[in-house]
Amino acid sequence: MDHSVGFFQDLAIVMALTGVVTVLFHRLKQPVVLGYIAAGVVIGPYSPPFQWIHDKETIQMLGVLGVVFLMFSLGLEFSLRKLFKVGATAIVAALFEIVLMLWIGYQIGSAFGWNPMDSLFLGAMLAISSTTIIVKALSELGLKRESFAQLVFGILIVEDILGIAMLVLLTGIAQTGQLSAGLAAVTLVKLLLFMTVSLLVGVLLVPRALNYVARTGSDEMLLVAVLGFCFGFCVLVVKLDYSIALGAFLIGAIMAESRHLHRIEHLIAPLRDASSAIFFVTIGLMLNPAVVLEYAWPVTVITLAVIVGKIVSCGLGTFLSGQDGRTSMRVGMSVSQIGEFSFIIATLGLTLKVTSEFLYPIAVAVSALTTLTTPYLIRVADPLTRRMAHAMPATFSNAFGMYGQWLRSLIAARGEPTLFRMTRRIVVEIVVNLALVAAIFIAVSYSAPHSARLLAHWLADEPLQRVVQWSVALVVSLPFVVAVYRKTKSLALLLAEVSVQPTAGGRFTSALRHAIADLVPILSMIGVFLLVAALSGSILPPTGLLVAVLVCAALLLALVWRWCVKIHASMQVALRETFEEQPDP
Amino acid sequence: MDHSVGFFQDLAIVMALTGVVTVLFHRLKQPVVLGYIAAGVVIGPYSPPFQWIHDKETIQMLGVLGVVFLMFSLGLEFSLRKLFKVGATAIVAALFEIVLMLWIGYQIGSAFGWNPMDSLFLGAMLAISSTTIIVKALSELGLKRESFAQLVFGILIVEDILGIAMLVLLTGIAQTGQLSAGLAAVTLVKLLLFMTVSLLVGVLLVPRALNYVARTGSDEMLLVAVLGFCFGFCVLVVKLDYSIALGAFLIGAIMAESRHLHRIEHLIAPLRDASSAIFFVTIGLMLNPAVVLEYAWPVTVITLAVIVGKIVSCGLGTFLSGQDGRTSMRVGMSVSQIGEFSFIIATLGLTLKVTSEFLYPIAVAVSALTTLTTPYLIRVADPLTRRMAHAMPATFSNAFGMYGQWLRSLIAARGEPTLFRMTRRIVVEIVVNLALVAAIFIAVSYSAPHSARLLAHWLADEPLQRVVQWSVALVVSLPFVVAVYRKTKSLALLLAEVSVQPTAGGRFTSALRHAIADLVPILSMIGVFLLVAALSGSILPPTGLLVAVLVCAALLLALVWRWCVKIHASMQVALRETFEEQPDP
Repeated sequence: MDHSVGFFQDLAIVMALTGVVTVLFHRLKQPVVLGYIAAGVVIGPYSPPFQWIHDKETIQMLGVLGVVFLMFSLGLEFSLRKLFKVGATAIVAALFEIVLMLWIGYQIGSAFGWNPMDSLFLGAMLAISSTTIIVKALSELGLKRESFAQLVFGILIVEDILGIAMLVLLTGIAQTGQLSAGLAAVTLVKLLLFMTVSLLVGVLLVPRALNYVARTGSDEMLLVAVLGFCFGFCVLVVKLDYSIALGAFLIGAIMAESRHLHRIEHLIAPLRDASSAIFFVTIGLMLNPAVVLEYAWPVTVITLAVIVGKIVSCGLGTFLSGQDGRTSMRVGMSVSQIGEFSFIIATLGLTLKVTSEFLYPIAVAVSALTTLTTPYLIRVADPLTRRMAHAMPATFSNAFGMYGQWLRSLIAARGEPTLFRMTRRIVVEIVVNLALVAAIFIAVSYSAPHSARLLAHWLADEPLQRVVQWSVALVVSLPFVVAVYRKTKSLALLLAEVSVQPTAGGRFTSALRHAIADLVPILSMIGVFLLVAALSGSILPPTGLLVAVLVCAALLLALVWRWCVKIHASMQVALRETFEEQPDP
Repeated sequence: MDHSVGFFQDLAIVMALTGVVTVLFHRLKQPVVLGYIAAGVVIGPYSPPFQWIHDKETIQMLGVLGVVFLMFSLGLEFSLRKLFKVGATAIVAALFEIVLMLWIGYQIGSAFGWNPMDSLFLGAMLAISSTTIIVKALSELGLKRESFAQLVFGILIVEDILGIAMLVLLTGIAQTGQLSAGLAAVTLVKLLLFMTVSLLVGVLLVPRALNYVARTGSDEMLLVAVLGFCFGFCVLVVKLDYSIALGAFLIGAIMAESRHLHRIEHLIAPLRDASSAIFFVTIGLMLNPAVVLEYAWPVTVITLAVIVGKIVSCGLGTFLSGQDGRTSMRVGMSVSQIGEFSFIIATLGLTLKVTSEFLYPIAVAVSALTTLTTPYLIRVADPLTRRMAHAMPATFSNAFGMYGQWLRSLIAARGEPTLFRMTRRIVVEIVVNLALVAAIFIAVSYSAPHSARLLAHWLADEPLQRVVQWSVALVVSLPFVVAVYRKTKSLALLLAEVSVQPTAGGRFTSALRHAIADLVPILSMIGVFLLVAALSGSILPPTGLLVAVLVCAALLLALVWRWCVKIHASMQVALRETFEEQPDP
């Protein structure tokens, strides 16, 4: 056990000093996170006289565990239901905030004469607020259950999704040097496809598996199962070239649908607290106080920009989407800081070797300063709103009031809600099933080199191997193809009913409607085939064999049609059950 | 973050496979621990076809964390109070078990023609039962609250202490090649001194510090503080050349006296479960199935020896110390396995490079087999006792009954309980204070090279440096020296009162009594001085200066006598309060 003494000593120093510093920060009524970072600075290589840490690598490895558990916990708190409730406002506010902060960050960087990549990463660092710090601040102030807090959490969720997309885009830009609209579109579609499919498949499988394990009553086994799924999924995600943070977040969101959510949160909390403490310490470890002093001027400017920019952008976005002035101000004040995501983006820049060294300490310094101000800003939001309302000219406040009324009347005026909702629901179902079909073909063609090696034992002929691979993908995706066909048919029927009115169609009404209802699904099937063919890539069999496979598939389909319908229906039921089930208290 | 992907993949494989295997083992109604080991074997390098693990080192480092958390949890469950209740029986039974199993193990090893060191380590491996497995088995059978279970836990605690002493002794034997009685005595005394002092100082400081942190209400800060103390103390212990397992156990026992014991247990449980799962997997990783098959014969013999030997030795020890036959049988059946301690001892042998490679897989195999049998043995204990009672000749059962009666009459006959108790208590207090004095001088002389370097800035003269060091030690230990003086005085008074009866002393009774009461403390102070002088070693000043220091100390003592008495009294009160406080539910 001797080789691990150094590692233990590092861990002991990190934990002991962190303990002392956090107690100190708590006494000074400052957030614990700041204490962690401060402890990291004290331990770190830039602050003499002691060389505290022996093996920085291993400590940083444990720090990565902190990121995973932080994002996983965030995912556990994520809920599709909650998101839908505050959906529109959150999306508008988050988009407003991200776009404006990206622009402000880029402009500040350019004004300081930094290169475009540094400026871009600075913008990205300022875009996303810190969920952990907001949650901590709101719960310390006892405001966590207020309605504006729900809105804030909604904004944070949207920010997280957009932030993850931003990570992917930044990696792309860093590697190719430019942002092509095409790449951005493909990246976003691929990301959304991956997220949709993994959420669907995950929600179908993981909560059931966890329920099974949880029924044993053993916390230990449940924990091992949760960690197995979490790490396993993270590795899968990393293999697909997405970030480990995305993986942890997604699997957390999947487990959020488990009935045993609260037990899982309970079990994960100590692991998250211990490893995230180490993560925040490693941030401090990388902070060179000399660099912060050297860049005191940019740090000041950026800190002010974050506070003012976020209050204005997020507050305005909230207000424009129909909330009152007080709520908007409180939301804006709550999100006026940067945190863990900024460090992740700064780390990304350093890892990809596209940003300068000084960005990281600046991000840490700005985060520390804005973390410090957050609780005071939240507290000052209400008095400030009142003072502003008093000071505002009557014309202004009338105009604001009228805007709110107009917006509400707009929402109330939306007609035909039933037909609209029905159409939307069918379209969503078609898109989801198409996504599944696409994912199956992408997965099979992705794993083609491996399966070809296995198949080579029985089938030497390469085209025949492709036939087998393609057929497997086709058979697996059959239930979803059938579902797409049936949904398109009902959509076509619905549209035919609405668009072909007896007054216009006369005696052809019925025939026209039937024609549309029959034609659209067939056309859509051709579309599905083209999509699949495009996605299959290397595993698409040569034309002759392809036709043969399709004929066989058609014959098979005639036999198993009912079975396909049944399997799809039961999947749908299972999914709905999982989503609708409330977690045990 | 790329360099940690391999580490993550390892972790993912360990957790995912472990999850599957443990669920399987749970379905087969086998202990979870076996599942972990089995998962380790599957992942391990000896079982083709896959090379699952990339970075065995890091996984094993996390496995060491598992040992620390396991021993720490064990310490948390350890309680001086509980131990005192079942004290005598537990000590007799544990001693019986350890001595007999050491002997059996050594004999078996010799019989197989292994070298003496392998045989000795085999004996040590068989001596200690597995706390985790017994706790799991008893709680699964719903017997955890029965009175025989309390006795079993008492035996396990004694075993743990003796086991730790055994670790120290084995290390000594392995390094010097022989067991000298002197070394053994010095080792044991040093170990007991270290344990006593760290328990005392720890109980005085740690629960208070934790209470302070816990009052913030933040689980996160409490966890960081607990981990800081735990790792910090482990490092200290390792620096003193004791095992990390001992450190974790002691600091756990110290924290067991905290009012927030249950909160701490709650926070540590997931960390322990996750890391101990990894620890047990690493055991499986080191298990070469081929070696187990090769040594099938020794494995079988040793397994039988463990089961029969432990039932007989522990059951007999329990019976001889006055328990009834049924309880004795249940106790014997409960402890009839080996576990984590055996692996620690096997690892020690490998680390010290004194044992052969095959001992480890044998220990794992025997542990797996005996873990398997434990639940069945516990279940079969009662029916077996009944059958034995029926089958036993009447003479035998009469003799057994008479032995029990005789033992109970012996205990009841112990006279003068008040005087005996008072004397015992004063002696314990003197010993404890002497231990503290000794520890202070040992600590100061241990740190002498460091402090000399610091002192060199002000004092170039080496003897003067020693004067400063020795004086510091003397001043710090003054309250305890005063306590020793006062306790010896009251002990002398008590003894004088008893031993010098008026019938014998006549009119000199009072004078004699006074003479004894005055002489004994002075003699004891000379003894204390000799002890201290022997322990000071390198920091003892030359005679002239020493006398000067002593004179100064005597003058100082006259001034601060009352203050010394007060400080000692308040320490005693604080200690008693901490021990008597019940943990919050």
